[in-house]
Amino acid sequence: MASVAATPFNSRTSRARVLQCSSIATEPESTALPEGATLEDAKYMRMAVELARKALGHTSPNPMVGCVIVKDGQMIGRGFHPKAGEPHAEVFALREAGKNAQGATAYVSLEPCNHTGRTPPCSQALVRARVGRVVVGTVDPNPLVGGKGVETLRKAGVKVVVGVEQTLCQATAETFFHRIVTKKPFLTLRYIMSLDGAGLPSQDKRTSQAGSHYSHLLQENDAVIVTDTCILEDNPKLLSSEAGAKQPLRVVIAKSLELPLDSHVFDTSAGPTLVITDADAISKDVQNVSKHGGESMESLLTSKAVDVVGLNSMNLDAVLDLLYQREFNSVLIDSMVSDIENYLGPLALSEYGPQKVVAVISPVLRGDKQPGPGLQLEDVLDLERVTTRVCGGDVIVEGYVSKRPS
Amino acid sequence: MASVAATPFNSRTSRARVLQCSSIATEPESTALPEGATLEDAKYMRMAVELARKALGHTSPNPMVGCVIVKDGQMIGRGFHPKAGEPHAEVFALREAGKNAQGATAYVSLEPCNHTGRTPPCSQALVRARVGRVVVGTVDPNPLVGGKGVETLRKAGVKVVVGVEQTLCQATAETFFHRIVTKKPFLTLRYIMSLDGAGLPSQDKRTSQAGSHYSHLLQENDAVIVTDTCILEDNPKLLSSEAGAKQPLRVVIAKSLELPLDSHVFDTSAGPTLVITDADAISKDVQNVSKHGGESMESLLTSKAVDVVGLNSMNLDAVLDLLYQREFNSVLIDSMVSDIENYLGPLALSEYGPQKVVAVISPVLRGDKQPGPGLQLEDVLDLERVTTRVCGGDVIVEGYVSKRPS
Repeated sequence: MASVAATPFNSRTSRARVLQCSSIATEPESTALPEGATLEDAKYMRMAVELARKALGHTSPNPMVGCVIVKDGQMIGRGFHPKAGEPHAEVFALREAGKNAQGATAYVSLEPCNHTGRTPPCSQALVRARVGRVVVGTVDPNPLVGGKGVETLRKAGVKVVVGVEQTLCQATAETFFHRIVTKKPFLTLRYIMSLDGAGLPSQDKRTSQAGSHYSHLLQENDAVIVTDTCILEDNPKLLSSEAGAKQPLRVVIAKSLELPLDSHVFDTSAGPTLVITDADAISKDVQNVSKHGGESMESLLTSKAVDVVGLNSMNLDAVLDLLYQREFNSVLIDSMVSDIENYLGPLALSEYGPQKVVAVISPVLRGDKQPGPGLQLEDVLDLERVTTRVCGGDVIVEGYVSKRPS
Repeated sequence: MASVAATPFNSRTSRARVLQCSSIATEPESTALPEGATLEDAKYMRMAVELARKALGHTSPNPMVGCVIVKDGQMIGRGFHPKAGEPHAEVFALREAGKNAQGATAYVSLEPCNHTGRTPPCSQALVRARVGRVVVGTVDPNPLVGGKGVETLRKAGVKVVVGVEQTLCQATAETFFHRIVTKKPFLTLRYIMSLDGAGLPSQDKRTSQAGSHYSHLLQENDAVIVTDTCILEDNPKLLSSEAGAKQPLRVVIAKSLELPLDSHVFDTSAGPTLVITDADAISKDVQNVSKHGGESMESLLTSKAVDVVGLNSMNLDAVLDLLYQREFNSVLIDSMVSDIENYLGPLALSEYGPQKVVAVISPVLRGDKQPGPGLQLEDVLDLERVTTRVCGGDVIVEGYVSKRPS
């Protein structure tokens, strides 16, 4: 099986990049092209990735994939995978290209599938269309695919080049890759602090949640986790305002079901909501029906189409398992770090702790008025592939947690 | 007198920009051009600023100024002010243009001087050369100049446009403007922290001091202040490795003169050094001559060409006064905030506290292992004109302290 190679950031200098607000890095890679590939190939692969990202937030449990078909310097086919159950990117691109596909080059951001899943195998569709050459961004870590798509193409006499714009293509499918390999969704931790590392009061936190970067994060994640404290203090909506966004499942981690029914997140006409609590809270809720006119909070929430789940033991792994079962690739944690650790245990000490960190830095100095994010750690956690941008007046720093030595 | 207008950053969104490593923002301004100015004018003004910045770190107590002279779409003269005592930018540009200057347009990043200082007035030189039009980046806050240069030109029939790329031109002369108006050097505070706002151990601090951004900061500041603790713990060189850099005066704020004579900063062949201490430490030093073979530390330091000054009261204002007297426009504070405040008092509570903040953010999470920078503050300090970049693996965030309401 093909392994998910660590992206090649070797020197300290190349580890960090500057991005525009809400953008991803689609400029050319500095890494060498694989044998048989040209700069032209890299250009078309970046176009395939741009197509792939049109389905941002819609494809779980599948990855975003894009495909372009090029013949004699003309782009004759374009496609992306819109959502699970619908055709793959290659199918749309081949449809547009029609008979012209014969002898053309197909660019696919992810290795074409080779198995009959919800749709027939794309490797064979490419062979049938008699494309002459297939350029693949990255191989698929899915054991059902893993190099077999490439094998099928080669056996049929199609030229195949693998690894063009590999870093970009891996990043585009990173949450899918992570879920396939670990059986847990890809976890992003977001926190807000001042430029001198202090916490922010609620009102300033809300300011930092305005703007396109936050909307974009909610768009690209399948679920967003907050605590009941966050609901009580900040009453956030947790809705993306991006056009066409699929709203994330809003997950409230609650120690008690005693929450205001008019909280924004309980308006499920705007987006789905799940309350996760523990068995204790469920039994207390049943004892407290007199408080709510003979109704339990659970039934009141359910009547508002809010999903309520009680866990025997509320911890990070159990919550992620539950979200994995719901076929989610990506989950955002967006509450005070100390709060969330108080509920789910030390995040970074879990094997399934955050893969990515998003620090939202408000351009103010607060002195030592309020403690900063302060994760519970055993050791220093290094970040790699660090990017920074400014957005809505805040500085956003993103980085991936380095693989800890095992 | 012309006032130093606050730069026009009104909305939260426009307050922050992303820069390249060690670059300044020389892209076109989004603000409207003044009446009578064209986009062509803005382009030549940015070239004048680029010329001005060739003298980075060399011009104090004067500002960096650049000038280009353009006729019929051809650049016929170029100049910048290389250092105090040498001719102004306009003189070099007029020399290159020669007789061709007649009827040409001169672009000057700062209003031409109108008084005989170390050199004759530039406004009159432009009139004598019979240039037809002068485009000025920003007026001069110096009461000896303040609008008078523009007045002289206009009286002589020269067309004058003021305020093209004004923000950029003001930023290029910001330390000079500040010194003229406040009688104190412009103060930049630099600190290092982790992405979760914790302090860094010494070794990681040194890593964060490598690279071009730090060299650039040392190049652009006339002096850099550290504490004796910093000398003892980190033994930094505090030298810019930029080609042609004028090394900053290395200022050591010391509670005692008992410092290792082989510390890097006491090698004055590489750059000048000043130790500032208080009267107490000087008298203790005299009592301690037996410790150093009958010599005082002061005389040992002096024999290494290190300057030693004893202040009656060591505080931020007194130190800045001393550096103002030495004709410095710009001073960098580069020690642990708590250390430096322990020696000089709460920085941000002084009327002359930092005008600019440079946060160097190392891409690691440290939890709450070590306290962060934590300035002593009475109120929250807002930053404006915030920029971010990545450099040497670190994220650099810079911002200007907003004028506090008086």
